[in-house]
Amino acid sequence: MPSVPSPPPLNSNPAATAFSLDGKSPRTANEPSGPKPSEVAEEPGPSEVEGARLRDELCEAMAAIHQRGWCDGTGGNFSCVLQRQPLLLLMAPSGVDKGKVKPQELIVVDGDGRVCHGSGRASAETLLHLAIVRETAAGAVLHTHSQAGTLLSQWCWERGRKMPALVENPDEDGIAYLEVSDLEMLKGIAGITTHRSAVRIPVLANDQDLGRLSRRAGPNLERAPAGLLIAGHGLYAWGQNLSEARRHLEILEFLLEQRWRQLLLEVLMVRGHGSAPDTEGPGELGR
Amino acid sequence: MPSVPSPPPLNSNPAATAFSLDGKSPRTANEPSGPKPSEVAEEPGPSEVEGARLRDELCEAMAAIHQRGWCDGTGGNFSCVLQRQPLLLLMAPSGVDKGKVKPQELIVVDGDGRVCHGSGRASAETLLHLAIVRETAAGAVLHTHSQAGTLLSQWCWERGRKMPALVENPDEDGIAYLEVSDLEMLKGIAGITTHRSAVRIPVLANDQDLGRLSRRAGPNLERAPAGLLIAGHGLYAWGQNLSEARRHLEILEFLLEQRWRQLLLEVLMVRGHGSAPDTEGPGELGR
Amino acid sequence: MPSVPSPPPLNSNPAATAFSLDGKSPRTANEPSGPKPSEVAEEPGPSEVEGARLRDELCEAMAAIHQRGWCDGTGGNFSCVLQRQPLLLLMAPSGVDKGKVKPQELIVVDGDGRVCHGSGRASAETLLHLAIVRETAAGAVLHTHSQAGTLLSQWCWERGRKMPALVENPDEDGIAYLEVSDLEMLKGIAGITTHRSAVRIPVLANDQDLGRLSRRAGPNLERAPAGLLIAGHGLYAWGQNLSEARRHLEILEFLLEQRWRQLLLEVLMVRGHGSAPDTEGPGELGR
Amino acid sequence: MPSVPSPPPLNSNPAATAFSLDGKSPRTANEPSGPKPSEVAEEPGPSEVEGARLRDELCEAMAAIHQRGWCDGTGGNFSCVLQRQPLLLLMAPSGVDKGKVKPQELIVVDGDGRVCHGSGRASAETLLHLAIVRETAAGAVLHTHSQAGTLLSQWCWERGRKMPALVENPDEDGIAYLEVSDLEMLKGIAGITTHRSAVRIPVLANDQDLGRLSRRAGPNLERAPAGLLIAGHGLYAWGQNLSEARRHLEILEFLLEQRWRQLLLEVLMVRGHGSAPDTEGPGELGR
Repeated sequence: MPSVPSPPPLNSNPAATAFSLDGKSPRTANEPSGPKPSEVAEEPGPSEVEGARLRDELCEAMAAIHQRGWCDGTGGNFSCVLQRQPLLLLMAPSGVDKGKVKPQELIVVDGDGRVCHGSGRASAETLLHLAIVRETAAGAVLHTHSQAGTLLSQWCWERGRKMPALVENPDEDGIAYLEVSDLEMLKGIAGITTHRSAVRIPVLANDQDLGRLSRRAGPNLERAPAGLLIAGHGLYAWGQNLSEARRHLEILEFLLEQRWRQLLLEVLMVRGHGSAPDTEGPGELGR
Repeated sequence: MPSVPSPPPLNSNPAATAFSLDGKSPRTANEPSGPKPSEVAEEPGPSEVEGARLRDELCEAMAAIHQRGWCDGTGGNFSCVLQRQPLLLLMAPSGVDKGKVKPQELIVVDGDGRVCHGSGRASAETLLHLAIVRETAAGAVLHTHSQAGTLLSQWCWERGRKMPALVENPDEDGIAYLEVSDLEMLKGIAGITTHRSAVRIPVLANDQDLGRLSRRAGPNLERAPAGLLIAGHGLYAWGQNLSEARRHLEILEFLLEQRWRQLLLEVLMVRGHGSAPDTEGPGELGR
Repeated sequence: MPSVPSPPPLNSNPAATAFSLDGKSPRTANEPSGPKPSEVAEEPGPSEVEGARLRDELCEAMAAIHQRGWCDGTGGNFSCVLQRQPLLLLMAPSGVDKGKVKPQELIVVDGDGRVCHGSGRASAETLLHLAIVRETAAGAVLHTHSQAGTLLSQWCWERGRKMPALVENPDEDGIAYLEVSDLEMLKGIAGITTHRSAVRIPVLANDQDLGRLSRRAGPNLERAPAGLLIAGHGLYAWGQNLSEARRHLEILEFLLEQRWRQLLLEVLMVRGHGSAPDTEGPGELGR
Repeated sequence: MPSVPSPPPLNSNPAATAFSLDGKSPRTANEPSGPKPSEVAEEPGPSEVEGARLRDELCEAMAAIHQRGWCDGTGGNFSCVLQRQPLLLLMAPSGVDKGKVKPQELIVVDGDGRVCHGSGRASAETLLHLAIVRETAAGAVLHTHSQAGTLLSQWCWERGRKMPALVENPDEDGIAYLEVSDLEMLKGIAGITTHRSAVRIPVLANDQDLGRLSRRAGPNLERAPAGLLIAGHGLYAWGQNLSEARRHLEILEFLLEQRWRQLLLEVLMVRGHGSAPDTEGPGELGR
């Protein structure tokens, strides 16, 4: 199992970065220098204007997601990449109502998941955000706790455990797949151009050890359809930027809810008529 | 299979039209003339004020439809007829969040589906909007991706494929019908004056070739109840103007969601009691 | 079958009324007199201020009801009593989006359902509003087309038709009852003080002849729990004033949606285990 | 059965309290003295600013809860502790639309449930709020009437009555438990740190005698997961402060709705395949 590569140490010489971490006042070259810059060449970060814009957009996205009922009870977390080298993410602090976060309340975390700017704790799930960003080059990661995401991931994982043929490694490192196919909405996922497609969303067992969970997730992210399910927990969706991540989130949540409705109908159809769905004739259901 | 008649070439002499394509500044007769006007007599288009009003209304309609959860993930598309001869439609560009489009961001497409004003691409589905407008004289076409529309269209099409007696041409050019009857809300569809009615919403197989899909749809549009379903895809609703199209959309989406609930109940009722629904006596369900 | 008493002729001498029909300018005693006042003593109507307040409240109520998805596609209608003797109702005109009506767009209808002030047509269902107001002394009547109201009324009526023992007069003048019991929310209905209650909401067959439907409804209104269902159509809820009517509407719609969920559960429970619900032991469902 | 201790008599000498009950004007020492202060030492109450803030927050919370559809038809009630010794709660008056209460309309009730400031009646359920505050040291109690809370509590209680092994005291003082386990959202409940948990929400029979209901509830509150269900009635959720109470409410309502969906799926799975859920093979449901 490949390990997620260690992130480079955070450059603590702010003078080398062209942006301001709080989105307000830019750092200047006059600030005292700290440890030498890391050996990885640093990209210039976003300008102050872009940083402020990203903060506003992330807060607006979280408010919209909360409005959908997808991050109740302070659940969920949402990140944007502020800078790639070294890696810095913009996120809400842990344990707050994500629907009410103001731009200045966002925190910046580094490639180890440590807070390097702002007040509050970083969520432990930051490690999974970092893994997704590293493996997929995503620019934003959105993690929700929706009804459909929680239910379908649990159902799929439980079913996989009982039916080992469906599970690639039927032990604790196992993975199951929730398949959705033949729907137009699949085309909302980057790279899918026809409804005659099937996506298999990887489903991992939930795990409070986020380092371990991130390492399990890592190898499965590149081929994933911009989404990953954690059983009985929820969905991670991502995209090249916040806009694409939001589109992927809406598409995947739609597909999960649709799959739930399909499941009800499939089970009901099979129930009454053995293995041949829908043979009761047009009389009952033929309208 | 009758072909959809070729649209007349777009009149490229703007001086002949009385309105402004961007809803802002009217064209004047002093602008240089281009190719000769088409042989089809041109109607005067909407005035600048009407054009601006239509833009505002279309954006407001899309925001309301997005609020309903009917066009997530940049799905769906919505058009108004700006001018009939030659045909010009006002639409949102493809691939944008339909809930956030501003009036000035709308595009104008011609009778061939080409963008003739504004930034962005026209959706491939524009061809189906054009077919509906030509066959039904609709003034607006609203295409949604709702949960009920996606599920019921798929279910109906699959059922039709398995039960050829229900399908008129049980091959790829086949069509199925989703029937809804005996509901007061049917009266929201133009021409229906009593609940003792049944509407049959045509259901076509999904197809990424929108030209072919539009040609299949064409012959079925005139007798359709202001709506058409594409299996596993969604609903097209239309009306003489945007207001009527919105009413038809709300009515049809209501009927689809109602049909879904009816289906759950019907299947459950049949399940326990053979062919006689609801004979378990008042004890269990008699309240 | 008792007939609904004929309403007294509208007093067409506006000088005798103390209020203004449009909520704006009061009538004066100088206006020409018309036919003699009816023999029924006239109450003074609401003052101009009260009339304006009522208009605002009714529009706000309709916007909130539309927000709930209870009057889509211009369906539904909502009335307040403006004056009792002679009877005058304030309503939205027929065929408009009830969620967007402005106070000045409301119409006033008389005791025969004729528009006596404002633009637009009165809904045919005005006759049922009038019947409810006369039989129950209601001050407001709210008629919705919700998913649960449409489905449960249809299911209840169909079940009643098949099981004559449940239906008092099992012919076209028949009536069925939807019973809801043992829920705390029942206490939201005036006169109900304990959850150990059962309400029986009368259900009538739908009928496009609203005069006939109103006459059928009449005898059943006094004992009804502030609500009446029309099969496959929806709910009428009422109260002494608009505030109480809104409370009754919310309570009854809650009970209908709850009854739907109960029904799913009841049918599923019976399905698997014969006549003894829920005997599969704690293992499956015992959590 | 231990009784809830009698609350100390309300200190009716306002001069001894440092805050203003209406959140506006502080009481002064010049006001006439009443009975001697109680023997329990009085804590200084919140300052005027804090009192006003609490009023605003409570009204905002109620508006958000009403927006969720969790307190329709004037149902539900919501309290914050204004002062501990002697106990004073801030609440909305009984029988009002909780979504529209303004800060100045809130009432203050004492430890006996009597209104000591403001207009309107205190809900009878105030006694249960007081019991919860006393037993758990909660700073806020939120009581909702949601669809899931009403349905699941009723289902759980009925099931417990039929299956005495599940009920600790299978008589009228009995209690049942709704168990939810293995979900990440459980971590939103204070003290729960892993999804590998199970919470058992106590369910009591509904009772119009709130004194008796509160005494039954008392012994079960300390070990409850910040929530209590009353059968066919709804949920009480609480927390150390309003913010924590809101988080607990959202978490518990999420878990109830999730449990409902799980229940549908469980029952459907068992239905077709005896005691072994989900053995029909991947063909039907294996996606």
